[in-house]
Amino acid sequence: MPSGLRFLIAAKRCEITELQQLARTSVLVNAVGRLIHGLQRERGLTNLHLASGDGQWAPALAQQIEDNATLQAAVVGCFEAMDLPVSRLNHGARLFSRIAYALQGLDALPALRNRLRSEAWSAERATAAYVRLVGGLLAVVFETADAASDPGISRRLVALFNFMQGKELTGQERATGAALFAAGQADAAAQQRLLRLIDSQERCLQVFQEFASPALYQAWLLTQRPEQQAPLERMRRVLCTAADGTPLDRQLSLAWFDANTAVIDAMKSIEDQLAVELLTLCESRIEASAAELAEFEALTGERALKPQADSDLSFFEPSPSDASPDHQTQTLAPVSPSGFGLQVDRSILELVQAQSQRLQAMGHELDTVRASLNERKLIERAKGLLMAHRHLSEEEAHKTMRQMAMNQNRRLIEVAEALLAMADVLPAPQR
Amino acid sequence: MPSGLRFLIAAKRCEITELQQLARTSVLVNAVGRLIHGLQRERGLTNLHLASGDGQWAPALAQQIEDNATLQAAVVGCFEAMDLPVSRLNHGARLFSRIAYALQGLDALPALRNRLRSEAWSAERATAAYVRLVGGLLAVVFETADAASDPGISRRLVALFNFMQGKELTGQERATGAALFAAGQADAAAQQRLLRLIDSQERCLQVFQEFASPALYQAWLLTQRPEQQAPLERMRRVLCTAADGTPLDRQLSLAWFDANTAVIDAMKSIEDQLAVELLTLCESRIEASAAELAEFEALTGERALKPQADSDLSFFEPSPSDASPDHQTQTLAPVSPSGFGLQVDRSILELVQAQSQRLQAMGHELDTVRASLNERKLIERAKGLLMAHRHLSEEEAHKTMRQMAMNQNRRLIEVAEALLAMADVLPAPQR
Repeated sequence: MPSGLRFLIAAKRCEITELQQLARTSVLVNAVGRLIHGLQRERGLTNLHLASGDGQWAPALAQQIEDNATLQAAVVGCFEAMDLPVSRLNHGARLFSRIAYALQGLDALPALRNRLRSEAWSAERATAAYVRLVGGLLAVVFETADAASDPGISRRLVALFNFMQGKELTGQERATGAALFAAGQADAAAQQRLLRLIDSQERCLQVFQEFASPALYQAWLLTQRPEQQAPLERMRRVLCTAADGTPLDRQLSLAWFDANTAVIDAMKSIEDQLAVELLTLCESRIEASAAELAEFEALTGERALKPQADSDLSFFEPSPSDASPDHQTQTLAPVSPSGFGLQVDRSILELVQAQSQRLQAMGHELDTVRASLNERKLIERAKGLLMAHRHLSEEEAHKTMRQMAMNQNRRLIEVAEALLAMADVLPAPQR
Repeated sequence: MPSGLRFLIAAKRCEITELQQLARTSVLVNAVGRLIHGLQRERGLTNLHLASGDGQWAPALAQQIEDNATLQAAVVGCFEAMDLPVSRLNHGARLFSRIAYALQGLDALPALRNRLRSEAWSAERATAAYVRLVGGLLAVVFETADAASDPGISRRLVALFNFMQGKELTGQERATGAALFAAGQADAAAQQRLLRLIDSQERCLQVFQEFASPALYQAWLLTQRPEQQAPLERMRRVLCTAADGTPLDRQLSLAWFDANTAVIDAMKSIEDQLAVELLTLCESRIEASAAELAEFEALTGERALKPQADSDLSFFEPSPSDASPDHQTQTLAPVSPSGFGLQVDRSILELVQAQSQRLQAMGHELDTVRASLNERKLIERAKGLLMAHRHLSEEEAHKTMRQMAMNQNRRLIEVAEALLAMADVLPAPQR
């Protein structure tokens, strides 16, 4: 068999293995999403339970905790299934490290629940604990999106991650607003947090819009019913604009909670559809790649009999589909996932060039998708830098960066890059 | 064993597997470098042979071809060793696809040599064929640098790739200049190519300077001996400034060839030192990671006996080394590759957080290193776009972009990004 063909086949097998990993990852992400949803409900019920003080929410909370045990077992099962083929993952070390962190949180969950049963924690403190737990699980999803090597699948994973993150921010907004209404008094710090949560939700949904399939974006838009949105936005306005210390209508607490819960539940159904779409996409890509592999393998029999002519110098001739390391993807045509067809007459060189071009184009597309994840990382790092160096809260850091972007008429990512570039010259964090 | 610890260990094992792959890759890169050097010599001797016409270079050429067979066998051996653990590589599909292309070229090499023996090809045409072959091999090296997941090693691979690329450009400059002197007449097109080659060499060496260890950069500077540089720069000036069609001193052809050969040979010795340094680095990183793994594994025995206290809520407490998905790397301290030490008293949570922070910081550092590879890709893509859409030669496209950068006072990469952003609105390439 010509050695080029052998590596063409090896490359195709690699692609299939990576796609199979992505399919497993999609199953994992879906299981994590279900658990997160359960924990979000548990967090909400805990808040209601702590706020009411009369135990009316205790049975619902107990039921949710029981349901969550099942969801958690499913996630841990997925984690353990990943642990086996240790070295077969892209960015395996980072993903496993995220999983280790998430598992630490899940292991500590019974202790948290015990504490919440025996001690009167504030709703805020309880919320913060659940936020941390969900954050650890979302980090696992983020890492899977960052590791995906197929641009089409990576796009959907980025859409899904941002949607899940947006949903979690909605959950946090629900908790913050419910506590504010329950307290009956406007509070500037909580207001800042609310503004940050709303702002971040919008950023997540923009990325979702950019990377989701049009069909699912439409499905999401359809869940945005005006009769639900209007009262919610009215309550948001009240919460966000009331002067510090002025009274708030305590009665609105439950209405606010329920309205946000309806939004979160609608988001969950979209999230499930995203997960199904993702898995379907993985499967169809695996099928297409397997068909291509079969074509390549069929060639080995024929080509073994017809060795390359000794006079064949086509490798050395410049061709429009030049696969040299440079300039090779000047083509602007969209990349067909199954671009080979049954052209057994084509030379192996052409197949190699076509595959190489296709992989390069996929690489460029992947760079574009990853850029959005990278922006997110940079913005969060810049925020962390501000928090550490200026002793700011997350809200204050967020606001400072927004303000800088507005004043300088620059994008948030540009402000973040400028801040990070200055990191070396900043004084060490004050302790 | 606590499940967090298990995944901490899995993450460490992944890291070690990736480092072992990198060590194998380093061996491959070194073998490829040797073959490239041999092919560069073969190309040079072929040029001399074609230019002299009297067969005086035939024995040296025959000897070089024989030597190259050995070097080629070593490279193919490395390729085949990689083929086995198909799915264990990052970006395996892209690397294998590059290898398939390079092998197509090596398979066609005997046909090329036959043709060169039997037909009077021009030196230019012969050079172009070898340039293509070497380009295919360099693309393999580029891909390994792009796939490396350890930032320290990735830095060295990027330095090495750019150095190898710079050396190849020097080889092309040698051939172009030698042909010009031999022709005895200045030629505007060849002059443009020369300017492009010199310019690109400098770009490569800048990246080399940025990413090489200070020791090796110093070693490279020491090879730059003024008594060699001065006559070479004088000849460069003559070649680059002579008016189109004016006579050139034919006698200088061999002096030019020899002076460049001395530079290339000096570069080869630096390249070998780079390869040794790379392998040493891989080995020391593997050793450090293995020691950390042993520490973690030692913990499993102890911790299995001391289960996490049910009241341990430390996961839910905000800590300065917060490992939530966001803001977690506000630390500006340099990352120690073996930052754990023998602190068995530290909780597993702290170990998980430390490892997660370390991997994140490595990820950020890696992004920085990859940015330089990405710049290269974008510049070459933009060049390819200009070539395709305006029917420009590589030299013309290069010059156009340089000019745009100068006129707009922007960096070359910014011009490239602007061009690529316009790609969608450009008319389709003229055929």
